[in-house]
Amino acid sequence: MVPTAQVKEERKFWMRVRERGLKERPSLLNNFEDVKESTLSERAALKEAARCLKCADAPCQKACPTQIDIAHFIGCIASKNYYGAAKAIFSDNPLGLTCGMVCPTSDLCQSSCNLHATEEGPINIGGLQQFATNVFRRMGVRQVVPPEAKNLKNANKKIALVGGGPTSLSCATFLGRLGYKDITIYEENEYAGGLAALEFPQFRLPLEAVNFEVNLVRHLGVQFKNGMKLGSEDLNVQKLLMEGFDAVYLGIGLPDPVSLPIFQDLTAQMGYYSSKTFLPRVSSGSKLGFCAGCKKKKFFELPKLDGNVVVIGAEGGAFACARCALRCGAKRVYVAFLHGTSDIFATPEQVRQATEKEYVELLPYLMPTKVVVRDGKIEGMEFHRTIQTEEGNIEIVEDEKMSLQVDYVISAFGSTVANNQLKKALYPVEIDERSRVKVDPKTLATNVPRVFCGGDLAGIGHTVVEAVNDGKVAACSIHCMLQGKKLGMEPAELPLFHTEIDEVDISVEVNGLKYLNPFGLASAPSTTSAAMCRRAFEDGWGFAVTKTVVLDRDEVTNVSPRIVRGSTHHQGSFMNIELVSEKKADYWFCAISQLKKDFPMHRIICSIMCDYREADWVELATLAANCGSDALELNLSCPNGMAEKGLGQDPKIVADICRWVRGAIKIPFYVKLTPNVTDIVEIAKAAVDGKANGVTAINTVSSLMDLRADGTPWPAVGAEQLTSYGGLSGSVIRPLALRAISAIAKKLQNIAILGTGGVESGETALQFIHAGASLVQISSAIQNQNFAIIEDYCSSLRALLYLKANPPPNDGHLWDGQSLPQPLHQRGKPILPLRNSRNQPLGFFGADLCKRELCIEQLYEKCGSTFTQPDPPTEEQQLAVMCTKPKPASSLAKLRGAALKHIGSFKALDVKQQQVALINEDLCINCGKCYMTCCDAGYQAITFDKDNHKPLVGDNCTGCCLCHSVCPIIDCISMVPKKIPHVVDRGPIEQTGD
Amino acid sequence: MVPTAQVKEERKFWMRVRERGLKERPSLLNNFEDVKESTLSERAALKEAARCLKCADAPCQKACPTQIDIAHFIGCIASKNYYGAAKAIFSDNPLGLTCGMVCPTSDLCQSSCNLHATEEGPINIGGLQQFATNVFRRMGVRQVVPPEAKNLKNANKKIALVGGGPTSLSCATFLGRLGYKDITIYEENEYAGGLAALEFPQFRLPLEAVNFEVNLVRHLGVQFKNGMKLGSEDLNVQKLLMEGFDAVYLGIGLPDPVSLPIFQDLTAQMGYYSSKTFLPRVSSGSKLGFCAGCKKKKFFELPKLDGNVVVIGAEGGAFACARCALRCGAKRVYVAFLHGTSDIFATPEQVRQATEKEYVELLPYLMPTKVVVRDGKIEGMEFHRTIQTEEGNIEIVEDEKMSLQVDYVISAFGSTVANNQLKKALYPVEIDERSRVKVDPKTLATNVPRVFCGGDLAGIGHTVVEAVNDGKVAACSIHCMLQGKKLGMEPAELPLFHTEIDEVDISVEVNGLKYLNPFGLASAPSTTSAAMCRRAFEDGWGFAVTKTVVLDRDEVTNVSPRIVRGSTHHQGSFMNIELVSEKKADYWFCAISQLKKDFPMHRIICSIMCDYREADWVELATLAANCGSDALELNLSCPNGMAEKGLGQDPKIVADICRWVRGAIKIPFYVKLTPNVTDIVEIAKAAVDGKANGVTAINTVSSLMDLRADGTPWPAVGAEQLTSYGGLSGSVIRPLALRAISAIAKKLQNIAILGTGGVESGETALQFIHAGASLVQISSAIQNQNFAIIEDYCSSLRALLYLKANPPPNDGHLWDGQSLPQPLHQRGKPILPLRNSRNQPLGFFGADLCKRELCIEQLYEKCGSTFTQPDPPTEEQQLAVMCTKPKPASSLAKLRGAALKHIGSFKALDVKQQQVALINEDLCINCGKCYMTCCDAGYQAITFDKDNHKPLVGDNCTGCCLCHSVCPIIDCISMVPKKIPHVVDRGPIEQTGD
Repeated sequence: MVPTAQVKEERKFWMRVRERGLKERPSLLNNFEDVKESTLSERAALKEAARCLKCADAPCQKACPTQIDIAHFIGCIASKNYYGAAKAIFSDNPLGLTCGMVCPTSDLCQSSCNLHATEEGPINIGGLQQFATNVFRRMGVRQVVPPEAKNLKNANKKIALVGGGPTSLSCATFLGRLGYKDITIYEENEYAGGLAALEFPQFRLPLEAVNFEVNLVRHLGVQFKNGMKLGSEDLNVQKLLMEGFDAVYLGIGLPDPVSLPIFQDLTAQMGYYSSKTFLPRVSSGSKLGFCAGCKKKKFFELPKLDGNVVVIGAEGGAFACARCALRCGAKRVYVAFLHGTSDIFATPEQVRQATEKEYVELLPYLMPTKVVVRDGKIEGMEFHRTIQTEEGNIEIVEDEKMSLQVDYVISAFGSTVANNQLKKALYPVEIDERSRVKVDPKTLATNVPRVFCGGDLAGIGHTVVEAVNDGKVAACSIHCMLQGKKLGMEPAELPLFHTEIDEVDISVEVNGLKYLNPFGLASAPSTTSAAMCRRAFEDGWGFAVTKTVVLDRDEVTNVSPRIVRGSTHHQGSFMNIELVSEKKADYWFCAISQLKKDFPMHRIICSIMCDYREADWVELATLAANCGSDALELNLSCPNGMAEKGLGQDPKIVADICRWVRGAIKIPFYVKLTPNVTDIVEIAKAAVDGKANGVTAINTVSSLMDLRADGTPWPAVGAEQLTSYGGLSGSVIRPLALRAISAIAKKLQNIAILGTGGVESGETALQFIHAGASLVQISSAIQNQNFAIIEDYCSSLRALLYLKANPPPNDGHLWDGQSLPQPLHQRGKPILPLRNSRNQPLGFFGADLCKRELCIEQLYEKCGSTFTQPDPPTEEQQLAVMCTKPKPASSLAKLRGAALKHIGSFKALDVKQQQVALINEDLCINCGKCYMTCCDAGYQAITFDKDNHKPLVGDNCTGCCLCHSVCPIIDCISMVPKKIPHVVDRGPIEQTGD
Repeated sequence: MVPTAQVKEERKFWMRVRERGLKERPSLLNNFEDVKESTLSERAALKEAARCLKCADAPCQKACPTQIDIAHFIGCIASKNYYGAAKAIFSDNPLGLTCGMVCPTSDLCQSSCNLHATEEGPINIGGLQQFATNVFRRMGVRQVVPPEAKNLKNANKKIALVGGGPTSLSCATFLGRLGYKDITIYEENEYAGGLAALEFPQFRLPLEAVNFEVNLVRHLGVQFKNGMKLGSEDLNVQKLLMEGFDAVYLGIGLPDPVSLPIFQDLTAQMGYYSSKTFLPRVSSGSKLGFCAGCKKKKFFELPKLDGNVVVIGAEGGAFACARCALRCGAKRVYVAFLHGTSDIFATPEQVRQATEKEYVELLPYLMPTKVVVRDGKIEGMEFHRTIQTEEGNIEIVEDEKMSLQVDYVISAFGSTVANNQLKKALYPVEIDERSRVKVDPKTLATNVPRVFCGGDLAGIGHTVVEAVNDGKVAACSIHCMLQGKKLGMEPAELPLFHTEIDEVDISVEVNGLKYLNPFGLASAPSTTSAAMCRRAFEDGWGFAVTKTVVLDRDEVTNVSPRIVRGSTHHQGSFMNIELVSEKKADYWFCAISQLKKDFPMHRIICSIMCDYREADWVELATLAANCGSDALELNLSCPNGMAEKGLGQDPKIVADICRWVRGAIKIPFYVKLTPNVTDIVEIAKAAVDGKANGVTAINTVSSLMDLRADGTPWPAVGAEQLTSYGGLSGSVIRPLALRAISAIAKKLQNIAILGTGGVESGETALQFIHAGASLVQISSAIQNQNFAIIEDYCSSLRALLYLKANPPPNDGHLWDGQSLPQPLHQRGKPILPLRNSRNQPLGFFGADLCKRELCIEQLYEKCGSTFTQPDPPTEEQQLAVMCTKPKPASSLAKLRGAALKHIGSFKALDVKQQQVALINEDLCINCGKCYMTCCDAGYQAITFDKDNHKPLVGDNCTGCCLCHSVCPIIDCISMVPKKIPHVVDRGPIEQTGD
């Protein structure tokens, strides 16, 4: 019980947000740090990706202008395959990183997310897209022309793209990937990127992102001619056509602001900007290396504003101007517009950020009528009041005026083509009354043959991503034309984003058989029918193990329900009481023989099971081999039905059966081992003794999944609600599988091991291979999604092998697989490691939060807008990426068993090399989980400051690692070598008993 | 590749939100449905609760005016203990449901949530509070006076509480719980609830919630005198004191609106309301059974508005009025206020809901100056423009006017005490210049002895929850005074919320020893020292098994790191390579003997381990028994160190050791079994053969947790990065533990089984008991949190036993434990099962969404505001809850093994009783996961409509249950008996192989 007045005061010590209603507001001067709500750290990206359902025929993809396969790329992120995600994104959208940062996703992909139907709401698709492409950026891998482009006809046709912005970059990329070799982008500025570089503020789209994507285009051999302005002497449409270009794409955007007569004679000196003059000046003053790509390296200063600023307009650009104005020194910023607040055109996210976080003031229902200038300086603005009629139309109220004392006016209500020089330069291309080029919306062809137009200039879309899509559509049309086909027919197949990672070979040879990749379907629900194997092969699976075939006299019938999700609700883990195949044996023999004909490069392993009778095994094995199976798997361990006979738990039986089978067939065969034994190695040895070529490990783990509160089990059959023990599968049993496989591999070095039990990604597959498996079998992960995961797994494995051979630039920290080292961050946004006067880290709540705000204000005021930005790469560095040949990746065969040397008996572990926990206070979120576990399940070595909630590790830390295990923030706690002597506490005796 | 123009069109087919910028806007007339973003379904509540970190010294609690133990109650929700959650909430806040619905949490508890530091943001604490208390409401359990109240001195002192709103209800509750028997609430209206009933709109706080909490107060014997208005003839402070009341609490709130002279003569007929007149009229017109508690049952109509409405003010009440106005028929609603949009006082959530979802228009910087009335009807309003000075002050611009054509004006800028009658009635209580009663903020004492005041009338807080806290503070003060103590000293210990659930006995007797509850610490990190056992007992754990004691010659030293989180990042699962206790044996013997002295009611089981040598076992067991242990546990199965000798995997060794120990000691002992054996029952039998009293099952599962991408393991020791197999524990091994326990219990009916391995809640503990365990041991769940979870587990088990004996009212659907049947919902909000003209369910996106909107509009217009509200309970029903004696709950001993009859061999399962999947289209979110899994891992029985994304189960469904397992929405897919004949597909032969 605490009195109300006291709680009100004490709350302030713990608040992690600014108190509302405070009159003082923090200055944002010079501060162009990323504040996007959507930006995600790896931890948050993994959480968000896991939350995504990866829907069938996903509506998010349909709502994306570039039709990115969003479900697939998020699936890749969830399995830590950031390369696979980036590949999917860039395949459909060459400006995937830019769009991940700037797309108005709530109007696009997110608007259709099925999770709108749940309380958690739609997936942060933009943030995930930004995350994956940004990790890829850090990998230092270049784009290469896909191999299939080699055979392109007319590859040397000349193509000109006018404008270096998103739409041209996109168009050039697709043409480059198709194999066209003579592509030139004409850009008026000395750098590329167009409005992505010029008009998006650094806090929304940093220049390094833009430059990275421009470089991806360069990797394809696309040429840039800078300083070439359409409408200048050197560049117009007619000239390009006369110079013999076979195709011309116009993608220059809209260069001029929409304006009002009252703004006509105003200048920047007087305090007037349009968004078209203001935003580029802000960019040049806040983006380090803005001119990295051009010859003259100059650095501009930010426009200096002060006092009150009014921005006219309610589109995204207006809010960008308003937020930039605050960063240029404005004390108060108003956004004034014609209509009401509920008709604001900018997305709610943009408006919230501006109004709730940065205190931009909204002024609805105003029509600007006059700018008041005195002594060459703006002093104020006048407006007419507007009203909205019942029908929703806006009308001006002539006799109601409003004046506003402002020092700066920024007009930001759209762009257009206003200058006649440009219009002339477009000739003979036709322009409509809105000053947009007339195009066929399907093909983007203009009235002039060979000339196409897209992006804002064509006026179909209004966003970067739509401009990118226009570039893609135009690339298809141009390709069509250059290949001599009629426009607008079947769209061309566009090649995917391709890098040297895609060239990594992940094939494996096992017992003389080549497997395209190590991924196969386990003998499980996914191989219930031959049609399913067929589809899996079409999707790219390397092999399939049929559902277990039995002699017709052993025919089974399943009960229902029989396959349930884990009671721990862990994705991708199941328990089943399903039996072997219900199909007749002949069905399978026919099917295998047909499948082998249709898929000669894929492998089919026939799983078989009999009673413990030689004649049966010989009969069934012979039939299974004769129908053309590449190999057999002997199922001695299904936990249901025949399983209960325990065939696979007795080494003698296993050896007998193997001998019988070996006597009957020549092809390789493997014994599927149950983990439900005291010593799985002993069983594996029996199989080898019986001349099996190897083993499959592990089958499912015998389990009772769940009991309801009333004591009835789940699953339960019939009115009696009966159950029997079933088999647990999926990710929860992976630690058991890794143990079994590594133990077998250590003992029996020369046999093949087909690993199964919890493979759910390329990364986990590599764990199985490192533990000693040659191939991996998958079922639960398919049950949780579908066959399409194979693409993710293959690209992931390729990326892991490639990165192992070619470690990314790392600033001293090692990558772990595809995970890059985490920067210091809170909310996924980088932070400055600030210290107080006693050199202790400044926290993120209460008084520290206020101090931090002040400290950051002062730093930016003193150090300017770019002091936290990394140095841009030099031309040499960029060239190096393009020219260095990557080292060849290791083969999977070589990596097999790589972990075994690290696994031994407990006695081999060195008790001298002790570690202790180290907490990074800048990453710490003060939850105290480390403290609690150390207190009640550890060694009471962590104290927790009651005033500032900082955990502190004491000298009595025994390095048990519990705190590291429960910490919710990746990398916040690390285990480091102990430097003081390790004294074991053997306990005081004969004291209080403590 | 799809042209941009085409995507723009097609996107509309899939959008799950209203397209922005549409001129037509849906009518909300009569629609008082819950639209709170915070309202959660069970599924979402479980997800959100799992996301909460349950921080140490949690700052959310410090920021809550009533200091609710938020981390604890969310922990209870996460373990499906909704009763435990409600108990914690109501213990500190008797209006927990109301506050869960109406608290401005972003300013209170949420403002301090540590998860603000992460991208996912703070926990939806209000929503979780609402969820838990609402589930409790549905349980039909009454509040009772706690047993400790029986001994209260002066229990018959007369207490009067004036006002029936939140602060009085709270004060009465705490006084009632303390044991005071003569408490009377005087309320001017004919029903209780105060502004909770009157001023909060039904869509935010439904009347059923208010009535429920009023009834909880009645359960304590508090009397209500309705129709008693302070200031009327019958009721004033002096009179109460003269009538002999020993304590008087004034909690009537602020009855009068703050007003302006320009509103003076305006009436509702003219189109004028204040929030104080408007909101109560809306409540009476939209809350079914508003007068359920009063004698005259009358039903009022909603105020009928039309045209334009302007609300004056920017507090929460203004936005409530604005939103209510839309529901009363207003076509457009403006909210006008003095300052800028960034100074709006209402919470951002309230503003967003109003502006983004309901299109309320904001009009900042306006000072009302005149209401234009013509022919007795409001026609418009006039304002002066205001401006904000550099210092942030608001100044009026006299010469800038603005007029607004409106039909209704609602003033909503606060409340006060304006009428003199009331002021007189308060005499001799002193009032300050703001018309608030002067109180001591610590004790809420007024200047008049025996008279206290809180809530809005005292002016310390401004929210319901602060009023509730004032009631609590006042209850403490009144209690203090009535007990003859000095006010403001140490605060009184307030009794917890108490119900008959808390009386359920969960003690157990095992081998002649009584255990207070079945929960104990496993021999694991949590029993590293005696001090830890001591704290655990203080927290309420029933017993503790010491970390394994060895003879000093077997002394061990641990490596580090050694305890890691599962690679699947599943909460509460760990793997360890930690050894037995590092402490000397004598330390433990001294400690046990001291602990037994200090905690005679708690049980200590000493875990011991030796090599396979009789003398050692005899020596250690004797010493362990002699020091006073209640029982011993023989650790024959630690997977590390001695474990590798495999003592526990050989039945002969187990039997030998048991015989040796049995020969040496008399107290009970149990053998801890490893699951890493072929047949655990055989080992258990050996233990019984050796005369052990029972077994502990199961120890950890041998595992290799994780391999990094470079092939090194985790955990890894030293520069060589070596590891050995460790033990997997926690929730992931629960299915293995349940299997082992039930198998042992079926075979060996008369031995005690101490269950362990994944108990992480009261509910999972009950599963172990149903499977045959008598007691359960816990470690991983403590590692993931701390000892405090015991309170959750005990209350959960009590609630489960109580509800089994007293099933809640259920509308035909069964509860599963504490989970109530889910209503039809989307986003957790109930929906109407609408159908299109072909009687197919209307979907929730694209064209169906628009149709749905229209359909709902028409329904509400036709059927009025209350047609979806359930009938309020009759007086008889309410009385029944108070008077029916609940049935006694079963003892745990009786429930032991209750599930065993449902577990048998596979052959016992009936293949005739087949089931099929049934999809509820109103719950379906169209993700297609059922379709995908059925397609690639099932029987291709589900089709997925490409146009409307509805999944359809075909006749070939085999009831495998995969779709049910992967469906993300609870209850959306259910398994139902198959009605058509079940034909097994044995496969076509000699066809295409499919």
